[in-house]
Amino acid sequence: LNPIYSGMGVTIFEKMSALCRDGSRINLGQGFPDDSGPPELLAAAGKALLERSNQYPPSPGVPELRDAVATWYYRSQGLDLSRDNVVVTSGATEALAVTILASISPGDEVILFAPVYDAYAPLVRRAGGTPVFVTLRPPHWRYDGDAIEAAVTPRTRAIILNDPLNPTGTCASVEELSTIAQVCVRHDLLAICDEVWEAVRFDGQSHRSLLSFPGMAARTIKIGSAGKIFGVTGWKIGWLCAAPALASVLARAHQFLTFTTPPALQYAVAEGLASDALIDERREGWAQTRAFLNSALAGEGFAALPNGATWFSCIDLPGSGITLDDAGFAERSVHEGMVASIPVSAFYETDAVTSVLRLCHCKAESTLAEGVARLARFR
Amino acid sequence: LNPIYSGMGVTIFEKMSALCRDGSRINLGQGFPDDSGPPELLAAAGKALLERSNQYPPSPGVPELRDAVATWYYRSQGLDLSRDNVVVTSGATEALAVTILASISPGDEVILFAPVYDAYAPLVRRAGGTPVFVTLRPPHWRYDGDAIEAAVTPRTRAIILNDPLNPTGTCASVEELSTIAQVCVRHDLLAICDEVWEAVRFDGQSHRSLLSFPGMAARTIKIGSAGKIFGVTGWKIGWLCAAPALASVLARAHQFLTFTTPPALQYAVAEGLASDALIDERREGWAQTRAFLNSALAGEGFAALPNGATWFSCIDLPGSGITLDDAGFAERSVHEGMVASIPVSAFYETDAVTSVLRLCHCKAESTLAEGVARLARFR
Ligand SMILES: CSCCC(=O)C(=O)O
Ligand SMILES: CSCCC(=O)C(=O)O
Repeated sequence: LNPIYSGMGVTIFEKMSALCRDGSRINLGQGFPDDSGPPELLAAAGKALLERSNQYPPSPGVPELRDAVATWYYRSQGLDLSRDNVVVTSGATEALAVTILASISPGDEVILFAPVYDAYAPLVRRAGGTPVFVTLRPPHWRYDGDAIEAAVTPRTRAIILNDPLNPTGTCASVEELSTIAQVCVRHDLLAICDEVWEAVRFDGQSHRSLLSFPGMAARTIKIGSAGKIFGVTGWKIGWLCAAPALASVLARAHQFLTFTTPPALQYAVAEGLASDALIDERREGWAQTRAFLNSALAGEGFAALPNGATWFSCIDLPGSGITLDDAGFAERSVHEGMVASIPVSAFYETDAVTSVLRLCHCKAESTLAEGVARLARFR
Repeated sequence: LNPIYSGMGVTIFEKMSALCRDGSRINLGQGFPDDSGPPELLAAAGKALLERSNQYPPSPGVPELRDAVATWYYRSQGLDLSRDNVVVTSGATEALAVTILASISPGDEVILFAPVYDAYAPLVRRAGGTPVFVTLRPPHWRYDGDAIEAAVTPRTRAIILNDPLNPTGTCASVEELSTIAQVCVRHDLLAICDEVWEAVRFDGQSHRSLLSFPGMAARTIKIGSAGKIFGVTGWKIGWLCAAPALASVLARAHQFLTFTTPPALQYAVAEGLASDALIDERREGWAQTRAFLNSALAGEGFAALPNGATWFSCIDLPGSGITLDDAGFAERSVHEGMVASIPVSAFYETDAVTSVLRLCHCKAESTLAEGVARLARFR
């Protein structure tokens, strides 16, 4: 078997969630809300399931959803897109796989920023490419132009940027984005932008896509996810946006990875994207869970790092008086404390930051309170 | 961009269906029923959507569906499987992608039988492998042991078998399967078995999987599809079955292609697989549409080839007095006759059979009758 996969374990997310499935543990590991999803969205999907066709929709997605994605990006980010820019995929993970398999060839190098989402490097390697890591460090996880420039070689084909950033919950500044864009333009790189957290930004901050910077429109693949916008992580409705010529090649890779995506869920997401009220309501709910978790942590003397986006809060372990490293603390927490978390070191292959623990905050307040109380026993 | 995709068009299925979407044409091209799916299955999905979690299910699938697949294979094919053999995927196409990306490495050769489903060769190439074609010919599309043996080299890693066979609607005999199994064992090959049509066999014939032949259990990946069993092609619920050690490596590739698949649809398929009555009812319905189309064709003097399985009937064009080749006849039919079909030559890269036209029969009788009447104008 291909050694990329035969040497690999289950993801840290799956491992932690599996330990929680018997109900004995509190799961602040894998990122998902503990509600089932917004009732209006579920009702829309139920209606489409019963009233519309359940046969193959068009491979790049139903026109209603492709249009809704383009329209929502215009309303929320000022981007000038149409359905020809949009390919619907079976989740953002498929969009990443499509993009990497279609754009990376043997011998290419791809710049990744660590902490790095676990799918990127294996997909780059399976495409024949070599990941080149640029390391970000707490507490601000800043993108350093010189470090990025130093990672570029004549073989560099693409960068993969996740902004807002999972696991840290931080966002690149406009200046950092501008620096990254300039590197891409200067060296003729593709920018694969995993922006699945774009709608989960707090404190009135709006999202700015790398796609919108000078020279980037033709070289950016922007990836989004209904699972994150609406908090329905099991639906696996994602999309990629790119210039039409690029999008149509990516659509070829998509037709041979999943071909298409369940139409009832696509129609429901199209309806959801038309409702700013629904999107705002979800974000405001998560702003509250963030505030609740951060204050519960502070109340127990944990030092939380700044987090302006995503469903995640991070604890600075040494700053909280904890001497175990993150992997050790996460192991003890899940097995003895009965609360699952994610060690940020799991997002590094080399040169890992081992002092930060990720917690998922989009849960009921009682769950968060009990989770923090359990964690506090290990301080 | 990777030349495998940048040089590629849309699939023939997507192309034909796109021409039909304005309602002006009869679509006997892409394989899908013209009903929306069995009401009990849609109701089960609607209920799960509203009553169960819409968050991430386990990456290899919900236990209920993994168990249901194993149990159904025991009941229907006598296979001794458990949930540890089963990984649920976002359609059989994803199962193929997972299997090929996880098992094929640069330099490997993979034996494909032409007519060949359009996803196989691009996936093999993207995995770094080289497709080696063994050609089957009408009217019986027989597998010839000597031809297969002659295609094996020291670099051969796998064969991909689609049985029952799309586009022909024919099935390998037990003798042919036994011959193929012996080649696999003799040369230590993996057998990637696309058996998505296993439940759509007519005339009382039961399906026999290559997995059940001596020496095959540890080397076979058997791929199935709820879309075909129940006629809900848009749901994209598929699976692969393999020995547990193999299945767990394939699950690693799956976690980075789509990670998981919508839980409501998985629960509904689990319920559906428990109902032999539902599966039989679908098959019996399609036995009737097959009979209706074949007799309508005969009534207009078209020569249909024998078809014992799938949703497809094939016309022998020269035997029907038609001098155009299949691609030419399909083009004229869709543009002038306003009826879409699939030329079987689209399933070959070289040495194509150009005398056979594929028609999809799982449609209302009025649609089939009108489709045949339109085709008859081109004889
Ligand atoms: C696909 S499992 C991982 C989900 C997620 O985004 C996270 O927990 O980081
Ligand atoms: C995924 S589109 C092709 C569907 C199908 O199985 C066919 O028409 O052959």
